[in-house]
Amino acid sequence: MFTCELNPASRVTLYDQLYEALRIQILQGGLPAGTRLPSKRELAAHLSVSTATVEAAYGRLTDEGYCESRPRSGMYVCAQLPDDAPPAQRGAAPIRWDFSTGTADAGQFPYAAWARLMREVLSEQNTSLLRSGDPQGDEALRVQIAGMLRRMRGIEAKAENIVLGAGTEVLTAALVALIGRERLFAVEDPGYSRIRRVLVTCGARISPTPLSGGAIDVRALYLSGAGAACVTPSHQFPTGHEMDIDRRAALLRWARETGAYILEDDYDSEFRFFGRGVPALAAMDGAEQVVYMNTFSRTLAPGLRLSFMLLPDALVPAYRKMHASCSVSGFEQETLRKFIAGGHLERHIARMRVIYRGRLQAMEKAAAPLGTFAYHGTGLHALLDVGGHMPAGELIPRAAQEGVRLSRLCDHSVMSPGQQAERVVLLGFAGMDEAAIAEGMAQLQRAWR
Amino acid sequence: MFTCELNPASRVTLYDQLYEALRIQILQGGLPAGTRLPSKRELAAHLSVSTATVEAAYGRLTDEGYCESRPRSGMYVCAQLPDDAPPAQRGAAPIRWDFSTGTADAGQFPYAAWARLMREVLSEQNTSLLRSGDPQGDEALRVQIAGMLRRMRGIEAKAENIVLGAGTEVLTAALVALIGRERLFAVEDPGYSRIRRVLVTCGARISPTPLSGGAIDVRALYLSGAGAACVTPSHQFPTGHEMDIDRRAALLRWARETGAYILEDDYDSEFRFFGRGVPALAAMDGAEQVVYMNTFSRTLAPGLRLSFMLLPDALVPAYRKMHASCSVSGFEQETLRKFIAGGHLERHIARMRVIYRGRLQAMEKAAAPLGTFAYHGTGLHALLDVGGHMPAGELIPRAAQEGVRLSRLCDHSVMSPGQQAERVVLLGFAGMDEAAIAEGMAQLQRAWR
Repeated sequence: MFTCELNPASRVTLYDQLYEALRIQILQGGLPAGTRLPSKRELAAHLSVSTATVEAAYGRLTDEGYCESRPRSGMYVCAQLPDDAPPAQRGAAPIRWDFSTGTADAGQFPYAAWARLMREVLSEQNTSLLRSGDPQGDEALRVQIAGMLRRMRGIEAKAENIVLGAGTEVLTAALVALIGRERLFAVEDPGYSRIRRVLVTCGARISPTPLSGGAIDVRALYLSGAGAACVTPSHQFPTGHEMDIDRRAALLRWARETGAYILEDDYDSEFRFFGRGVPALAAMDGAEQVVYMNTFSRTLAPGLRLSFMLLPDALVPAYRKMHASCSVSGFEQETLRKFIAGGHLERHIARMRVIYRGRLQAMEKAAAPLGTFAYHGTGLHALLDVGGHMPAGELIPRAAQEGVRLSRLCDHSVMSPGQQAERVVLLGFAGMDEAAIAEGMAQLQRAWR
Repeated sequence: MFTCELNPASRVTLYDQLYEALRIQILQGGLPAGTRLPSKRELAAHLSVSTATVEAAYGRLTDEGYCESRPRSGMYVCAQLPDDAPPAQRGAAPIRWDFSTGTADAGQFPYAAWARLMREVLSEQNTSLLRSGDPQGDEALRVQIAGMLRRMRGIEAKAENIVLGAGTEVLTAALVALIGRERLFAVEDPGYSRIRRVLVTCGARISPTPLSGGAIDVRALYLSGAGAACVTPSHQFPTGHEMDIDRRAALLRWARETGAYILEDDYDSEFRFFGRGVPALAAMDGAEQVVYMNTFSRTLAPGLRLSFMLLPDALVPAYRKMHASCSVSGFEQETLRKFIAGGHLERHIARMRVIYRGRLQAMEKAAAPLGTFAYHGTGLHALLDVGGHMPAGELIPRAAQEGVRLSRLCDHSVMSPGQQAERVVLLGFAGMDEAAIAEGMAQLQRAWR
């Protein structure tokens, strides 16, 4: 039976010690997926603790997606853990058409401009780039990012409030430390598995929160007592909805009234193809509790680790106390600064908008025979409701057999998402050109025939 | 009076909630340095909790260095917090001679070789560098690092166990998540403020542990119930001692017997100027619970964010589950790979050894009139006992007035380090050439006359 050493004299509660010991065993593979855990009574007797302690630890593991309770059978380790990074290869056949979300087309990277500027940086022999530098990142680069936020997103950002980091994982972890990991972090459900994983890895507790009208349900936030909410207002992942102005106001009101923080992940907002678009939450009045986050991984390339967040004034001094250095290399910061200052980034985004619009149209056209296509104006993936003509559980494996990778709406949920979500697939259109999209869609038609 | 909302229904203990609320207020400046906190009874009554709850929260804040109890006066917020990043500028006068530890000489960076290889990488247009890549970092680079560890440190490292990261802060945070933040983390006292700060920021509890014979006291580790120990065996910071073989064996035995992990920070080990040197802890038999960490910030430049750790086999699968991407840019990984493979790194280190040996000799010579010089064979700083000819509290301010920056041994302690540590200063010799070192030492002589 699972065993661990608990220390009743510790200031850490027995429940926390047991939770952590079980979680680590699960992560390290000592308790592999599908393992049946001992019953509460067995484990309590074995470890000489109360059943309430075991119950609390099991409860938190269940809430966070490590274990699941199966009726009249017991508690089992989940197949997909919240910490799980997305597997590199999901299908058995080699993947030739990849409709995953979150990909980018490396072939479109503005290689010539980037390489020229990087060479320029190297030839300037600016030794200040070799020093540890400002913990928030180079100020001149932050001035450029602030200008871009003003022009593209209507946010009156100050360079002093911007923090650069080597990816959104690194920045999210810093934010959790900054606002306190004792808060309960509400996450959208369905939502990004990445944000769940990062929060759990940081030691924060998460509360998967349902959507209402395509946005996080503000009533549920009041009820759960969450102290922070991680949201995607410009393009809810994965449903694709944009949060309307009333829901934005209600969300901000909740944060003000309860002292909570909102983490606004503005991914994909650069790619809007129709409609006018609502300003970012961080651009609205009274948004002192909004932390805005975005990345250049999507607009440039995932291999460049360049993300940033915009902190409210109150959090800046604490950030500077906690961090001695910025996690982004000096050379790449300076290259990015030149890239934005020279207008390359905005030109690249404008160019990619045209390319992606063509891909979206190609996909919509090819999707007609497959089901009901839905796209809400922004972002780089669409939804397709394939209806009821084949068992929902076979959609993904059959596609994989034909060399096509994609996911279903229900794959992004923690709580039971309802049967409809099992028949809706996500189709990312950023990673392939129009011809490959048409081919991949035809391949899907064969797979699901 | 300080106030916060505590939730008795939460699964987080009231003590933890209060601790965290106070800590965040202190970090955010709501309770600035020197503020007197309310008495335990006052605060308990104000928040409707027991005095034991307040006492426990105050106790942890004191242990971790946020507050200090002043006899017959009460509890005060400390001037120097554990999260504090080192201030950029400590003195009033401009600093012209910087004897800080942890600096490097940017002028010695092998700029030509690095720039040539980076240009080569850019011209190869390898688009795989633009993708997100392996979460542990590029495998070919890890093979190069493993070879270097074998040649330079006698560690039979496998590339599969190496993890690249954008700095030791990022890697230490990942490690805390990996082995569990519920462990008590023993840190050397005196020791690195950086490791204390990173651990506290990650939500781990730290236990400053005294030294015995220049190494962490293993008996104190057994007594404290620590579940991890962060140590600097090749060059204890700041005392400069190398851990002897018996103490290494005892430390490993402690880890094996208690299931604890050892974090071996091998900084500076490349720079040994006399003596033979003991192998790394990670190279000793039965070191399955040692995590070895090192950085290229010191050997190349702090502005390059390139660090790595070597995980025991058991931790690798969990690391891969927790992380979807590596925090180091693809371009810089590939440049570093070429740099090591071409022998540039080892040549650069050999060249720097000669330069640094000259600086050490210049410093030793100039130090003779100032006090008793001590250097233990490894690393880039020495110690100087200045004796009792002036008040210990004036050593640093007077040096700063003359444009010289340095620190005292006692500045690196959490617990009271004894009077002798107030009269011993640390002299880093990596940041200035021989002439500047001689000038700076002469300036110190003037300052302390």
